[in-house]
Amino acid sequence: MINSLGRKIPAFIEGIGRLEPFEGAYAKIRKGWMDEPTIPPPNKAYLPHQSKLCKSLEEAIMRSNPHDGMTISFHHHLRNGDVMLVQTLNILHNMGIRDITLASSSLLECHDPILPYLQDGTITRIFSSGIRSELGRAIAHGLMDIPVVIQSHGGRVRGIHTGKVQIDLAVIAASAADCEGNATGAHGKSAFGSIGYAVIDARYAKQVIVVTDNLVDYPCIPLSITQNFVDYVVEVDSIGDPSKIATGTTRITNSPMDLRIAKLAADVIEQSGCFKPGFSFQVGAGGASLAVAKYIRAKMKTKGIKGSFLLGGITSYCVDMLNDGLFETIFDVQSFDAAVSNSLFTNRRHIEVPAALYANPFNCGCITNKLDVVVLGALEIDVDFNVNVITGSEGYIRGASGGHSDTASGATLTVVVCPSFRGRIPIIKKRVHTVVTPGETVHVLVTERGICVSPACGDLAQNLKKAGLMVKDIHDLEKEVDLITGVPGPLEYTDKIVGLVEYRDGTIIDVIHQIKEKQFKLPV
Amino acid sequence: MINSLGRKIPAFIEGIGRLEPFEGAYAKIRKGWMDEPTIPPPNKAYLPHQSKLCKSLEEAIMRSNPHDGMTISFHHHLRNGDVMLVQTLNILHNMGIRDITLASSSLLECHDPILPYLQDGTITRIFSSGIRSELGRAIAHGLMDIPVVIQSHGGRVRGIHTGKVQIDLAVIAASAADCEGNATGAHGKSAFGSIGYAVIDARYAKQVIVVTDNLVDYPCIPLSITQNFVDYVVEVDSIGDPSKIATGTTRITNSPMDLRIAKLAADVIEQSGCFKPGFSFQVGAGGASLAVAKYIRAKMKTKGIKGSFLLGGITSYCVDMLNDGLFETIFDVQSFDAAVSNSLFTNRRHIEVPAALYANPFNCGCITNKLDVVVLGALEIDVDFNVNVITGSEGYIRGASGGHSDTASGATLTVVVCPSFRGRIPIIKKRVHTVVTPGETVHVLVTERGICVSPACGDLAQNLKKAGLMVKDIHDLEKEVDLITGVPGPLEYTDKIVGLVEYRDGTIIDVIHQIKEKQFKLPV
Repeated sequence: MINSLGRKIPAFIEGIGRLEPFEGAYAKIRKGWMDEPTIPPPNKAYLPHQSKLCKSLEEAIMRSNPHDGMTISFHHHLRNGDVMLVQTLNILHNMGIRDITLASSSLLECHDPILPYLQDGTITRIFSSGIRSELGRAIAHGLMDIPVVIQSHGGRVRGIHTGKVQIDLAVIAASAADCEGNATGAHGKSAFGSIGYAVIDARYAKQVIVVTDNLVDYPCIPLSITQNFVDYVVEVDSIGDPSKIATGTTRITNSPMDLRIAKLAADVIEQSGCFKPGFSFQVGAGGASLAVAKYIRAKMKTKGIKGSFLLGGITSYCVDMLNDGLFETIFDVQSFDAAVSNSLFTNRRHIEVPAALYANPFNCGCITNKLDVVVLGALEIDVDFNVNVITGSEGYIRGASGGHSDTASGATLTVVVCPSFRGRIPIIKKRVHTVVTPGETVHVLVTERGICVSPACGDLAQNLKKAGLMVKDIHDLEKEVDLITGVPGPLEYTDKIVGLVEYRDGTIIDVIHQIKEKQFKLPV
Repeated sequence: MINSLGRKIPAFIEGIGRLEPFEGAYAKIRKGWMDEPTIPPPNKAYLPHQSKLCKSLEEAIMRSNPHDGMTISFHHHLRNGDVMLVQTLNILHNMGIRDITLASSSLLECHDPILPYLQDGTITRIFSSGIRSELGRAIAHGLMDIPVVIQSHGGRVRGIHTGKVQIDLAVIAASAADCEGNATGAHGKSAFGSIGYAVIDARYAKQVIVVTDNLVDYPCIPLSITQNFVDYVVEVDSIGDPSKIATGTTRITNSPMDLRIAKLAADVIEQSGCFKPGFSFQVGAGGASLAVAKYIRAKMKTKGIKGSFLLGGITSYCVDMLNDGLFETIFDVQSFDAAVSNSLFTNRRHIEVPAALYANPFNCGCITNKLDVVVLGALEIDVDFNVNVITGSEGYIRGASGGHSDTASGATLTVVVCPSFRGRIPIIKKRVHTVVTPGETVHVLVTERGICVSPACGDLAQNLKKAGLMVKDIHDLEKEVDLITGVPGPLEYTDKIVGLVEYRDGTIIDVIHQIKEKQFKLPV
């Protein structure tokens, strides 16, 4: 099958099932969604006054009916500080459980220790928003027989809701929890803020274990996760290191180039027609995008503009803007900085939202549908404005779909910020290696060498030019960059498919092929 | 079929389906619950930036696919001040819609105007926690062909979750809402506090309309109902009169008799072994029960005892106890007093809870499962401690199941308070006319003439006697009262079943028969 972006999609993948080709960002929402029913959540019952407390994670897992072929889920709110995923898989491995489907909301460098389990049959399928580091490299080299499935944050909820991912066991790390399983990430020594990604897991998993390093008196408030979905509660010494949340892509850049791009993007937003009282705003993680908030903040103060809501991955910058009265509300599905927790805990206008409310395309309207402006990063972008945020220039899996395509599809103005090249590799391509976010949902590209506006955006290019901004045709910019960097040779890859990129509606927007690289050796 | 309380239950009712006999308060939780699967919630999808606002309730209903045979649901948080239920049914009647199933969380006197729709075929089935006034009288006289189904608050959630009640349209009155349908009862001119009963309707109804008389800027906080479940939003002049919430059964009694019983009940609780630091507490609506809180408050102050949580229908008394530091937390599924709203809105330890978390028996443990002491009223109680809170001495339907059986099943100590007779009609019976709450979940009866302890309660009777309380055998008390009042003649009724009393687990604990009363005439 060829999807509407011209990408070749197999009709069926052993171990995954029938695939549906992407046919446009809104095609399925317009016509096809009713064909995909949801699945019933589990029915459970417990007698009153029973204890859910287990002495150890091992005990809780043992009581949760672990079995070969099971699907286990995790959230990644602790990002690079998470220890529960590896610990849990070590336990399952030691129990001899095989053929596990790992459904984590994302995978980061700290999860590299599970690599041997991809080799020995412990883990045979992966659903995740992102994969990085050694895992991403090894998977791109064809380590797994069944392709990994990359999902957006909204798409992950849809997948659980519709039964494409059926979770047997959810292990939910919480920085505070009580004996009944009411739990939160909003306080405690390992506070990580919002626990928004885990809410759908709690609702749908056949068994739910809450793991905490801070067992508090009943009831634990806020009730971010509620007891009626929790089977077992375990206290451990540490769920992870929250100081590692604000690393990598969630740290505001110091790079002069990124700051310049961010400033330009703020200018674009200011002149776009969307920068007005009551506007809503989100910035994605990584590179220049987080930094745009800094410049928008200054512009709001100068112009006396007050916005409606900030959405998404929330940094201290966002909290400052709320406290400055620049925005009415924060909707927080993920906190990009442990320091954000205190605001989430104490400020009632800093609202924790589950991923379903944040971005699930299949409901009466998620918050991304209400978004005015989003600023997003890119590993690559092509002349059709398609964006790649999952594979690197060498073909490795090294990023995350995250909320990229969710917010792009909902926002009135989607701005992609990136340098025009990195390390002499052009970022603007004729055709991106992997499409995660379709070009029809992207409006403006901002680079250090100029601004490109999608031809679908009517007068926007003219308006930006009038405002003195350096607008270029994206084809021209692509050629300009090629002249500087040269055109890299094409990546060599095999026919083997190692990854499927699901669009948020469940259709397949692209596939990732095994790369050819003879000198590659698995780390031991 | 004969159920475990000796009540005759038909195996099948036309229009309702196969019935399952009650076999004990915990029988189904112990063994049978897995046989009853849940149903999938609806899948929906909307394009970004679409408006949900409708000009009128008529327009919203018209867009919601109204049809013959539809099921429509409401919450009763405005109690006797609600106007939306009658208005909605007027509109559906005017549209010519027939054969409606009405699934309201309760029905009160203010809903009497729908009586003609029970006669003309507009409404043919009713699921409700309570039915009162002219409706209850007319139904007891056999007005409807299909028996009404009385559900507990927890049982209602279970019924929706398992598909016994499949809601086509939920009309949710909110005292504040935004254009996307985020809604609450916590503020606004018609503030009614918790909207906990409506949360399950929002999640499962095929179409959801939020009606408000206070359309606020986006986003409306708190997000008691979230936009991802709401199809349409309507602004109206008034959703009702919140001053009528605190009437009838939700008003604290002034009756010296009730106050005396309440004081005795507080003494029982004090001596029960449950009155200790960290205890949790709920009082039901009506008569002496609400007043027990007053005496418990004084005892807690005297003894320096601090409790864990207050649960349930929440009065200003509960809020005072929270503010006095006597309890850590309030869980509020229903506010019995409009004045409570402000506490719910501003105090983060006054927590709004959905009915599923409050009392659904089929999950990982609702809050009633964690309850230490509950004080409940009764229309009748029998020598087996079975309680009737639904039918009056003349056989009319005039009460509500509410959270009665839910809390009784969960609490460590269930205390029923009532006078031994009312208007020369004994309240303590050999056999109650209708069982709502099974005697196995009731521990103590407190009347003005003495205290009776269930024989299942071990040493409790002895302990209360030692503490100087007037403990009597319930059989003796029953006889004592009969000597004062005389034994009323048996109610005359026909074979026709006009009501089914569902236990919280979905089994049938009792049926209500049509009463014989020749002089009855329907009001016109």
